[in-house]
Formats: sequence, C-alpha cells, structure tokens
Amino acid sequence: MTTRIELYDTTLRDGAQAEGFSLSAQDMLRVARRLDELGMTYIEGGWPGSNPRDREFFARAGELKLARSRLVAFGSTHHKDQRPETDGNLTELLRTPVEVVALVGKSSSRHVETQLGVPLTRNLEIIEGSVAYLAGQGRTVFFDAEHFFDGAALDREYSLAVLEAAARGGAGALVLCDTNGGNLPQTIAGLVGEVCARWPQVTVGIHCHNDAELAVACSLAAVAAGARQVQGTMNGFGERCGNANLCSIIPTLQFKMGCDCLEPERMRLLTSASRFVSELANLSPSRYAPYVGLSAFSHKGGLHISAVEKDPGLYEHLSPEEVGNQRRLMVSDLSGRAVILGKARQWGLIIEPEDPMVRELLAILKDRERLGYQYEGAEASFELMMNQALGREQRWFELIGFRVTDFKASEGEEPQAEATVRVKVGEEEAHTAATGDGPVHALDRAIRKALTRFFPRLVEMRLVDYKVRVLSGADGTASHVRVLIESSDGAEVWGTVGVSFDVIEASWQALGDSIRYKLFKDARG
Amino acid sequence: MTTRIELYDTTLRDGAQAEGFSLSAQDMLRVARRLDELGMTYIEGGWPGSNPRDREFFARAGELKLARSRLVAFGSTHHKDQRPETDGNLTELLRTPVEVVALVGKSSSRHVETQLGVPLTRNLEIIEGSVAYLAGQGRTVFFDAEHFFDGAALDREYSLAVLEAAARGGAGALVLCDTNGGNLPQTIAGLVGEVCARWPQVTVGIHCHNDAELAVACSLAAVAAGARQVQGTMNGFGERCGNANLCSIIPTLQFKMGCDCLEPERMRLLTSASRFVSELANLSPSRYAPYVGLSAFSHKGGLHISAVEKDPGLYEHLSPEEVGNQRRLMVSDLSGRAVILGKARQWGLIIEPEDPMVRELLAILKDRERLGYQYEGAEASFELMMNQALGREQRWFELIGFRVTDFKASEGEEPQAEATVRVKVGEEEAHTAATGDGPVHALDRAIRKALTRFFPRLVEMRLVDYKVRVLSGADGTASHVRVLIESSDGAEVWGTVGVSFDVIEASWQALGDSIRYKLFKDARG
Repeated sequence: MTTRIELYDTTLRDGAQAEGFSLSAQDMLRVARRLDELGMTYIEGGWPGSNPRDREFFARAGELKLARSRLVAFGSTHHKDQRPETDGNLTELLRTPVEVVALVGKSSSRHVETQLGVPLTRNLEIIEGSVAYLAGQGRTVFFDAEHFFDGAALDREYSLAVLEAAARGGAGALVLCDTNGGNLPQTIAGLVGEVCARWPQVTVGIHCHNDAELAVACSLAAVAAGARQVQGTMNGFGERCGNANLCSIIPTLQFKMGCDCLEPERMRLLTSASRFVSELANLSPSRYAPYVGLSAFSHKGGLHISAVEKDPGLYEHLSPEEVGNQRRLMVSDLSGRAVILGKARQWGLIIEPEDPMVRELLAILKDRERLGYQYEGAEASFELMMNQALGREQRWFELIGFRVTDFKASEGEEPQAEATVRVKVGEEEAHTAATGDGPVHALDRAIRKALTRFFPRLVEMRLVDYKVRVLSGADGTASHVRVLIESSDGAEVWGTVGVSFDVIEASWQALGDSIRYKLFKDARG
Repeated sequence: MTTRIELYDTTLRDGAQAEGFSLSAQDMLRVARRLDELGMTYIEGGWPGSNPRDREFFARAGELKLARSRLVAFGSTHHKDQRPETDGNLTELLRTPVEVVALVGKSSSRHVETQLGVPLTRNLEIIEGSVAYLAGQGRTVFFDAEHFFDGAALDREYSLAVLEAAARGGAGALVLCDTNGGNLPQTIAGLVGEVCARWPQVTVGIHCHNDAELAVACSLAAVAAGARQVQGTMNGFGERCGNANLCSIIPTLQFKMGCDCLEPERMRLLTSASRFVSELANLSPSRYAPYVGLSAFSHKGGLHISAVEKDPGLYEHLSPEEVGNQRRLMVSDLSGRAVILGKARQWGLIIEPEDPMVRELLAILKDRERLGYQYEGAEASFELMMNQALGREQRWFELIGFRVTDFKASEGEEPQAEATVRVKVGEEEAHTAATGDGPVHALDRAIRKALTRFFPRLVEMRLVDYKVRVLSGADGTASHVRVLIESSDGAEVWGTVGVSFDVIEASWQALGDSIRYKLFKDARG
C-alpha cells in the first residue's frame, strides 16, 4: 500500500524570502495557477498581515479557481499584549477567502524568553488561544512549530508542551520546523517519530531549511518516521541557503520510497513548472538541479554515452521523461529533434521524424539559442519561427525602423520619451510618432498607432508583462539583454521574446512578434 | 574520542566532468596548492591515461611541494584483453610521481555483462590482478567500486565478491561508489555497515553523486555506519547534478558529528577556498550554498535581524566565522531600525538607538522602498543615502540632464545609439557625447567622458554587472524598472540602484551613484 503525502508549497511565502527573489501580486497568481496544475495539495499564498502585496494576492485569489490545490494564508499567533479577537494579524487572516490557515508559534524556550520576552506559560496560552480562535471561526489550522528541533534539544518537555497547546486548541496539523536548518536527518527522524506516536490523530508535517545541505534528506527522513505533510518550495528557494526543495523531494518520495504524491501525468509537468517559477522570480534556474536541471540527465563522456545508448539505466537513476526532463547526449542532437517533433505535434503540425525539415529547424533553433533566445515563456515566438521555417508564414507587416529619443533637461525633471516608427503593410508605408512613459512604452504606442489602422482587432490586445534579463553580466552595460513580453487579448495570453545588445531593439523584436501572433491566431480562428 | 576522517578531494578529476567546468593544467596546479593549504588528506589530480592535460599536470606535480596532502592518480583496471604488465593505462599510472593510486573497477554484474562484455569471473581476475600489480610496485591502491550500491541491489553476492577480489589483491581502501547518484541514505548506510564489518582491517570509503539531492546526506550516513574516507568535490562540482559537496560535508562532520577533519584555523579557509575554485573553473559561485555562500548567513526579516543582534544563535545554526564566512544584515522592506543601526555600526558611524535621526532614516528608507528601490545588492547606494541624510554627503558633481537617441534605419540593420550628457563639477559644466552598444552603454560612456577629466581615478573603475528588473508587470511597458549595477576597481566591488518608469533614467541614477561611491571611498582612503 502506498503512503499518501500532502504536498505543501510555500514558495510564495517562505520562498519569497530568498535573496534576489521578487514577484508581483500578478506573478504570484500565475505561480499559484501553475502549482495547482502540477497538483500541490496546499499552496501557501503569503502573509496578509505582513505586507500589502500579499494582501492584494488574497484579495484577488477569487480569480484563481483552483482545481486541485487548496490555498492557505499564513500568519503568526496573536501579539503578547493582545487577545485573539483584537489581534490585527489574526483579523487579517480571517479576512482572506481561505479555509486553511497556517499559524506560526515559538516552540523553543530559548526563543520565547530571549526574543518574545514572555513567561513560558504565557506562550502556551497565546498558542492555544490563537489556534482555538481561528478553529472556532471555522478554519482548519495548521500549527507551525518554529525552531522545534533546536528547542527540543534544549528543553524537550517544553517543545512538546507547545505542541500539546496547539493540539488542545484544535490544530489540524502539527508542523515541525527546522528553522535554522542545521539539524541532522537522524535527529529529525527521532523527534518526528515521537510526535507521531504521541498525537496519532493529528497530521504531522515537516518544514526544513537547507543550511547544512540536508533539507531534502531531513524531509525524507521525517516521512519515513511518520510525517504525512511535507512543506517546501519550488527549486528550494528560500532565505539563506533555501527551503527544502520540493522538485527533489516529490520524485524521490514517489519513485524511490513508494509514496503517492502526484499522478504520473502531473509528475511530467515538474520540470516545466520548476523553470516557470525561476523565470517569473527572475532567478536563473540551476543547470545542475537534480531531476529538473538542464544537466541532470546529460551525458558527457564517450563511454557513458555509448553505454546510455545501449541501456539508459546503466548511467541514469531514473528515466528523465518521468519528471518531464530530457536526456541530453552532448555529442549529438537527438534530444533537440525530440523537442521539435514534440512541439510540432502539440500544435497539430505533422512532421515525419526523418523529414530534412527537422534538421533544418534544429539548426535554426540551436543558432537562436546560442544568441540568447529562449522559448520557455515565449512559445508564440517559437511557433512563429517554426511557421517561418516551414514556409507557412504570412507577412502581415514589416517593421522597417525606429528612432527613440529620451530627453531629461535637468535634475528633478522627469525624462521625456518619444518614438517614431516606420512600418510597411503591403505596399503602404506608415510613419507614426508617439510619446510614452519611457522609451519602450513610447515605441509600443507608436507601433500600435501605425498598425491599428490596418488591423482594427489589435485594439483588443494589451501587454500584461514585460521582463528584461541581462544575459551575461561580464561586460557591464554592453551585455546582451533578453526581453520577454506577455500579451493578452482577454481570450488568450501569449509570450514573445527579443534579444539584442540594445534593450530598445530587443523590445522592438518582442513587440513585433507579439502583434504577429495576435494576427496569426485570429486568422487561424 | 573524535573520529578521524580522511578527506579525499576529486575536484580535479570527477569535478572536472561538470558541464561548463574548465581548468588548464596550470589552473589545476593552483587548485591543488589551495586544497593542500586547506588540509585535504588526498588530492586526486586526474586520470593520466585519459588525456594530455592530466598527464601534463602529473609531469609538473613536482613543482607542488605539498605540505599536508598526498597526491593521487586515477585510472581503471586493466583492459579485458591485456595483462597488468602490458596495459597502457596501468603503465601510465606507474609513470606518475605518486605513491597512491585510485583504481576504478566494475562492481555491478549488470555493467560487467552489458557494458564490459566479459564473464563475471573474468572481471574478478582483472580487478585482483590490477590491484596486486600496482601494490607489488610499491603503490598504495584505493579500489573504487563503480556502481557498488546499484550492483548490490541486483546481486549482492557478486558486488561483495568484487570487493573481496580487490582486498585479496591488497587494496588499501575499498571505496563504495553511488555512481548514478540515486540511492537513499538508508541503503548506503546498510551496505557500508556490512562492508566495514566484513573487512575490518581495510579503510572503507564513500563516493556519492547528487542526482537525488542526497549526496551530502548519503556521505554522512556512510560515516555514521563506519566509512572513514569521504570522497567529494569542492562546491559539489561534477557530472550531471554533481558530486558530494565537501564544502558542506566537512563542517557538518566536524561541528555536528564529532569528527576530526580540519584544524580550526584551516576550517576558516573553507569559504575562500570554495570561491577560489569557482573562480578558476569560471563558474559563478552559488550565493545560496550552505556554509560558504554569500547568502548563507544573511538575515532579511526585521524580526530576524533584531533577534540576531541580541543573540546570533537564535537564527544561525553555526557561527559564520568558523568557516570563514560572514554574517550579512540585509536592507529590505521587512526590516527596520535594527538594520539601520547595524549598518551604521558596520561603517563606523555611531548613532544612538534613540537618536531621532534613526526614525528619519527609516522614513526615507521606507519611502524609497515603496518606490521600488531595493538595497540588497546595492549597499553602496544605501551608504550614500545614509550619508546624505546625516548631512555628511560631499557633492562631487551634479548630473544635470541627458539626451539618448537610438535609431534603426531599416530591418536587418543594427540600431545606432548615441547619448549626450550635461554634468556640473563645482562651477564648471561639461557637455559630452558618445555612441555605444545600446543606449545605456552610450550613456555610461558619455558620463565617464565628462567626469574623468575632473576625477582621473575613474579610469580604474569598470562595470561588472548590469541587471534590469521590471517591478510590476501588470501595466505592461509602462511599469517601473529597477536597475542594479555592480562596479569594480580591482580592489573592491560595489552595487548601486536606480528606479524609474524609464530604463534610461534608472540607469542614469545607478551610474551616478556608482561613480559617487568610487569617489567617496577613495577619499575615505
């Protein structure tokens, strides 16, 4: 019999503590949708009591319509000088449209005394009172026992008394946290086993940090000892060295420990979901990441490659397809071919594997990737490129040229941006000008001004996201930049890409593709 | 009594299999010196039988004069159609000036049959013969049992027979390898314990790969089960997802498991050695790396920071100084007063906690952060802002205004960027123009042209990184952007920030701060 594990994703809350990590409320909604599609049991959306962005996220959570996951709001137990009913943080939690809340409380006597500055018994009252209050309002309450393992090492009885208080208050789960991330798997396993034995009717959860590079191992050890809820983040994002990495934990639990985490077809979404979150957070995905990294199933040595061609299991611990990743043999282009065929199939284009077109598309793709193009999150550009290579492109318009001026007369004054563009539709040339909030905005307005006359449906479309990534910082401001644009016309959202040493030129390419795709998809119907 | 552990570094051999990793023979010598200084027991220098670079390394190994470490040469057991005395690979090993050799052989019946293509008994002869031959030539031979754990899962008796053959041949160590990196710590521990019990007179070693993000945990589990030699690489470099990371294993063994690995003063060289190896291999060090990463002891949340100031152990599993790393208190919207005071102290500014200036600085900081400024990674801008608020700012120059033009005449042509800037130094105004690779590069060049005449030391400085982040994508191209610039003058690296709806204006701000900071720090001396 397999063991069912609750997957609790805290990328949007604890993961957001990672240095360099940054998501807008809009990005958070997109990530939540992707996590739902992947099949997380719980998605922790943030801490509404701590900042306006997380409040905005919960205010808009109604847009989400999650199919598989339940949204969780996070907060702390009530302030030491308040009662539950008067506490701002608990009130904020009750305002969110969620049924499940996670409540963090101190479970180490050292932190209660030094940091919180209340008697040990008062902390127990605070915890029981906070949990009971939210449970009384109909919420399912998960209690996060902060510093549980460090606390238990100092004063085991007190840390267990904290769990007892939460259980008395009606907590639906007791989540044991290795907040400082320095404990060993054997320590974790021992205490988890003890807690599971003592509260058999409550779900026991585990929440680890990676300060000793053991967060994955500690989470697995906790499951082996009886924990049934695993908290972590996509790609292990999190404060300091990160949280437990769900992208490694999920496949290991499922394929190596006989647990039931995700349906097989959802497991195959793991790699793309991992990259999607990195992309939105604007952090480069690690190519060496287990299971989901670009190098995770790469074979380099000639001996390895010939062995892998005979029998992949000789040098692979798992089949990459199981997690939606790909084998890469670094002397051959076999993997790229599969991508092209797979994408083509996805879009209903039938290409035979032996068609010379495949090799040609592959050469174009490799060449573009070498220049810095990346089609993850820019699949509209990829589709346009394939159509062009297949000779199915329709030349709706040509972008001829632009002039962008940005002028700041004196300190304290705002800069004035202006753009002129020249485009050609059929035999007709349009030459327009526009101002804007910054040079890219001006450019966007000028292009639309030029084209809307010919293609009235362009008024339906708007830019929903604009991202810039510097590709290699080594040359300072002369580096290449990649611009990713996301557009929407209400019915559909699509992404396009541009690359250049010049941010205006890269934006010009991505804007052009964005409009082309709108025309292409409207024509396709 | 503490357990003495042999540290076996294979960065130069197995680590060099990492995708993107590249070292010359000269670099290899430099890395070996650094590993010796750190105090590794063994340094595996490479595989002289496999490539000319490794042969060159061993030919020059006499230059090294290692004080603490012993050099090891790596090779495989003799070819199936050869005898030990006639085998080119073994001959090559005997030519190296080392006393210790590592010899890899197949220990999984599946690999013997499918990949090597010899009868199982022939493989045992090859292994015993190879080990005995080198031992007979006076070498200490470590036997690397490739695929030991996967092999034992299929045919335990055969894998143990392989070890028996190596032991009969006179191996000084039996090193158990998880070559595909997919085993769990409990599997590793069970087999290591069995091998230790069976060959109590031989050192048992462990060699893990990180394909399930468990290489560190598996190595530690092996030590707990009796292994006394740990093989791994600096920063976990290695094929696919990497090898076991010695930078995490060493401090955990020493500080958390009571083992004796390095003298305390050598342990303090760990962080700098880790960064040195990344630098030479031309791979960016991971900022999130446990123990040695830039973020490993960073504190972000305001509550965390005030707690850490009271007692660092509240939110740290180890004192960063022990491994030569540093605590960093970060400036972010979650934090407050404690950061201001901590930063001021770090820079030698004495501000009393009750000074109204603290409240004022805090208000300025919150205001700037609301606008999208972020001082993580832009600490130079933060320092300039504090100096200004404290009335200690020196106005080296004023940026007055700019005009940036970017012109693309036709499709297929590259855009031409030009910038003019006006700056004031004292009563004198400079008005300069420059072209560049894109508008930001042109702007940078024009500013320097204007200011270098007044401040000749600006020629020392260059941009090392340039990042653009769109703050909230919800409004498309009219969103605000944040530009982060990193500059260096060889002696120091500093970061500055600018925010605007206009990418050029944001860059203008960050460039201005970058130059101001250079002048400020040179004046401070």
